Amino acid sequence: MTITLEQLNAAPRDQAAQWLLGLYEHSDWIAEKALDLRPFRSLAQLKHAMVQVLHAAGREAQLQLIRAHPELAGKAMVSKTLTAESTNEQSKAGLTDCTPEEFAHIQQLNADYNAKFGFPFILAVRGPRGLGLSRHDIIATFERRLHNHPDYELAEALRNIHRIVEIRLNDKFGITPTLGQQVWDWQERLAQHTDPGYAELGQLTVTYLTDAHRACAQRIAHWMNECGFDDVRHDAVGNVVGIYRADATQTHARTLLTGSHYDTVRNGGKYDGRLGIFVPMACVQQLAKAGRRLPFHLEVVAFAEEEGQRYKATFLSSGALVGQFDNAWLDQQDAEGITMREAMRHAGLCVEDIPAIARDPARYLGFVEVHIEQGPVLNEQDIPLGVVTSINGSVRYLGEVRGMASHAGTTPMDRRRDAACAVAELALFMERRAAKDGDSVATIGQWLVPHGSINVVPGCCQFSLDLRAPTDAQRDALARDVLAELQAICERRGVHHRLEETMRAAAAPSAPEWKNRWTQAVQDLGVPVFELPSGAGHDAMKLHEIMPQAMLFVRGLNGGISHNPLESTTCDDMQLAVEAFQHLLDHLTP
Amino acid sequence: MTITLEQLNAAPRDQAAQWLLGLYEHSDWIAEKALDLRPFRSLAQLKHAMVQVLHAAGREAQLQLIRAHPELAGKAMVSKTLTAESTNEQSKAGLTDCTPEEFAHIQQLNADYNAKFGFPFILAVRGPRGLGLSRHDIIATFERRLHNHPDYELAEALRNIHRIVEIRLNDKFGITPTLGQQVWDWQERLAQHTDPGYAELGQLTVTYLTDAHRACAQRIAHWMNECGFDDVRHDAVGNVVGIYRADATQTHARTLLTGSHYDTVRNGGKYDGRLGIFVPMACVQQLAKAGRRLPFHLEVVAFAEEEGQRYKATFLSSGALVGQFDNAWLDQQDAEGITMREAMRHAGLCVEDIPAIARDPARYLGFVEVHIEQGPVLNEQDIPLGVVTSINGSVRYLGEVRGMASHAGTTPMDRRRDAACAVAELALFMERRAAKDGDSVATIGQWLVPHGSINVVPGCCQFSLDLRAPTDAQRDALARDVLAELQAICERRGVHHRLEETMRAAAAPSAPEWKNRWTQAVQDLGVPVFELPSGAGHDAMKLHEIMPQAMLFVRGLNGGISHNPLESTTCDDMQLAVEAFQHLLDHLTP
Repeated sequence: MTITLEQLNAAPRDQAAQWLLGLYEHSDWIAEKALDLRPFRSLAQLKHAMVQVLHAAGREAQLQLIRAHPELAGKAMVSKTLTAESTNEQSKAGLTDCTPEEFAHIQQLNADYNAKFGFPFILAVRGPRGLGLSRHDIIATFERRLHNHPDYELAEALRNIHRIVEIRLNDKFGITPTLGQQVWDWQERLAQHTDPGYAELGQLTVTYLTDAHRACAQRIAHWMNECGFDDVRHDAVGNVVGIYRADATQTHARTLLTGSHYDTVRNGGKYDGRLGIFVPMACVQQLAKAGRRLPFHLEVVAFAEEEGQRYKATFLSSGALVGQFDNAWLDQQDAEGITMREAMRHAGLCVEDIPAIARDPARYLGFVEVHIEQGPVLNEQDIPLGVVTSINGSVRYLGEVRGMASHAGTTPMDRRRDAACAVAELALFMERRAAKDGDSVATIGQWLVPHGSINVVPGCCQFSLDLRAPTDAQRDALARDVLAELQAICERRGVHHRLEETMRAAAAPSAPEWKNRWTQAVQDLGVPVFELPSGAGHDAMKLHEIMPQAMLFVRGLNGGISHNPLESTTCDDMQLAVEAFQHLLDHLTP
Repeated sequence: MTITLEQLNAAPRDQAAQWLLGLYEHSDWIAEKALDLRPFRSLAQLKHAMVQVLHAAGREAQLQLIRAHPELAGKAMVSKTLTAESTNEQSKAGLTDCTPEEFAHIQQLNADYNAKFGFPFILAVRGPRGLGLSRHDIIATFERRLHNHPDYELAEALRNIHRIVEIRLNDKFGITPTLGQQVWDWQERLAQHTDPGYAELGQLTVTYLTDAHRACAQRIAHWMNECGFDDVRHDAVGNVVGIYRADATQTHARTLLTGSHYDTVRNGGKYDGRLGIFVPMACVQQLAKAGRRLPFHLEVVAFAEEEGQRYKATFLSSGALVGQFDNAWLDQQDAEGITMREAMRHAGLCVEDIPAIARDPARYLGFVEVHIEQGPVLNEQDIPLGVVTSINGSVRYLGEVRGMASHAGTTPMDRRRDAACAVAELALFMERRAAKDGDSVATIGQWLVPHGSINVVPGCCQFSLDLRAPTDAQRDALARDVLAELQAICERRGVHHRLEETMRAAAAPSAPEWKNRWTQAVQDLGVPVFELPSGAGHDAMKLHEIMPQAMLFVRGLNGGISHNPLESTTCDDMQLAVEAFQHLLDHLTP
């Protein structure tokens, strides 16, 4: 028997609690207590109510819940019919059919995990797509999580419990996130295309105008046509542009622009960029299937180049839409010496048509973009969607401190000119200074003592600086303080430095009316409204220069890791993103 | 007319002051005031008295003295007869005959130097050997010193002034440091031998049993024979051993052992190790010339291998003398795949004879070693010789911190697990902790974020630790605190680490009676007695295991830099080292 949300909202408390029995392992009090927050306008709201109940219950209750779970390792079983085929079969879910080596390894992991954390390892084994994780995935996750900080791992265990409950709840209510699954599956299929040399490594890398890149474009265009877009084209820089026309009665209809990029970083994730192409495609698919038209044109752009991996031309394709294609890029060479001009010619693109793809803002309502968060905030908050307040402004430097290389044994501490210690001091200052702002970030990502020897005091240290803040003024104040501190450190330590600014990007605050549209959509879905800035740059930054824009973030799993194969989110969260986008479309009155 | 020290000590003050006119540029008050400290037992004592007077006079007086000097750049002159030959002639001393480009460059350096420091550039252009520096050397020094910290550069200017005065004083007293010059010249000549590929770079590299290495051994043996050693041999590991026999009446004479190594690090200095071979050789040369015999045998060993460059077998040859030759070393391969066994066979060495070169301590009085300091202490103190109290014990580790690589833009400061910042915190702790001991040192010499990206929070940081202290207990306490802090940092930051101990060497305190012999020698030379530990390891560490030992350090120029072509000391300081060694020989009664 399946329940409806209306029934749950209307039922006497005992009856409602009865329906929710068995969601949390031996801990029905959580769902019961959540019922105080009825009525729920969506399952998402009920889920979050339960998250809040457990959060408020405190650490002891949380540990008790975790310990109420049977040990996952107890489910591991050595295959009775072990063959070469079965051991190589990665897709088979769960821990049955382990090899004896795997079984022993899992028992060891389990012992180590219990010894470190004092509670059993909990994993939502049905996974983000709901199809079940492979043995290989389960073991890799076990190994990885063993390295987590205890506080983080406690929270990760709870998140896995909430995910298990989410799937159980869907079952109880007979709900399947079909649109989220559709979006998930498109991404999974698109990730089969990867640049030469990366397939063997099992890595996803799609850089500008490679064979894999052009295959992705073909595939996206193919799916756009399947969805029912009226017009699907490859433009002069390799973007795939799909248009779903307005209601024919709207003779002067303007256009809502959306989309994101399909290129990736090297060994990147499957969702970065691509999610923002497929979410609106799923909406168009539904509109076309229902024969519905909107009072405005919807234009979905799959941007060809955002990551600047093959050529140093980050945001090339969204840049072209705002008339900023730099012809000097054409003469850049990739690592194999192929110029961008040659690569474009090879891909059948017409360089001379590039200026014509710049958009006339007068024809557009604005730009919206859905993107995976690429950060840990929504995951930590246990909230599936986030409304972006601003894309942070940033500035980057490459630097070098020069001190005096000297003998590590013979140079007293008070006579050293240690270049690396000067950078160390700067790094710790940057941590404190950025934290003071709350929403600024400051990073030394590259850090090297060239030709460093174990017994030589570093005479040189090379490093990078990456500073970001939600407004240009805040970023500039941050940069001013960091550079002043570097100067002061160097003077105090008797070392000197040089610094080269390599990038500067202005902050792009969301247009208030567009941000409000996302807020309204999220709220109407019963999802708590959570605002956050975007630390990463996005195509929306470029469109920002000619039209209003606002972004919606989708929670990432695994600590929100991105630019990494561990990047992930669930099909349930993707479903919510599609519903939010659909809501925005339905409520937009041009 | 030349003066004698006796005359100076006996003369009325006015007369004495008159004799010393013109030593310090327009600043005769310095020498005059130093006369208060008469009588002087040596020129070295007079020199140091003047150093003390200027030191006590304070910064203003020092600046006035510096500013009293004419600008060196004013002496630069463009050659009037500029030919290809003359422009290539590096050996010609001084700044006459500059090319127009050099002239312009010097003027620019001069302007930059004055702007940065506010005083003229002063350089003792007659150089450490007294023969005059080349244009090339002068310009390179100018460039290098422009980068110094202002406080350091002020002291460096004063040191150059004292060196100018030293040379003027030698002239006034008609004294030439001939033995120091002899030692200098041997080192200069020996430095012509360098391993293949380094000669073209103008670099000195002599690693175990290369052609250059064997040529050095031949040359040292040749000079030992010239000096009048009774017996000169190449032993089974490539050491050159020279023996100067005791007075024939001493039928049961024991042996004083001394020496140091002739191999070098890659791109090393000319004096590291070799000074400790040539100083006793100069003494034997004098003894033999005078037909004098000592009441003990003197055995000078030029050790073949101390630096562990070609093979990981540091202290191989002094190790062999204490019976610690490790046969496993023989199978080690160098970078070209040549085993040590093959290299030894090629050099004509008999591996089976190695055990026989182990020394019987009963036949030895002890071991003494002269070595360039390889550190900044004596240079800063303006003291030419230092008595070593102990060779520091050391321990080394290679380590790695693992945090979580994440997006530099999207990961808030309070949710990072930045591996490099953890190491940064450790580095600053180590600075403070080692400084607290006063004579401990702690260094992170290798420091790397592997595959670091400007926009990624470091997920991994690899580093080395080098910890040293004058006693094992002090070293162990230091290591304990550093490792505990690393643990605490990692726990606090939620990152983890691993650490591998790669080396541990016990401290080797000087034998008191042997240290006292050096002290007495230094004192009788009129040089202030200054004690210091050795931060670097030396052959004496090995001999320490079977006999009493004590070392004498000689001041290094250029901030005491070592393992570097800038390693340097003056022939005047080498002269003092020879005199101290001779004093030790003359006063040693077995």
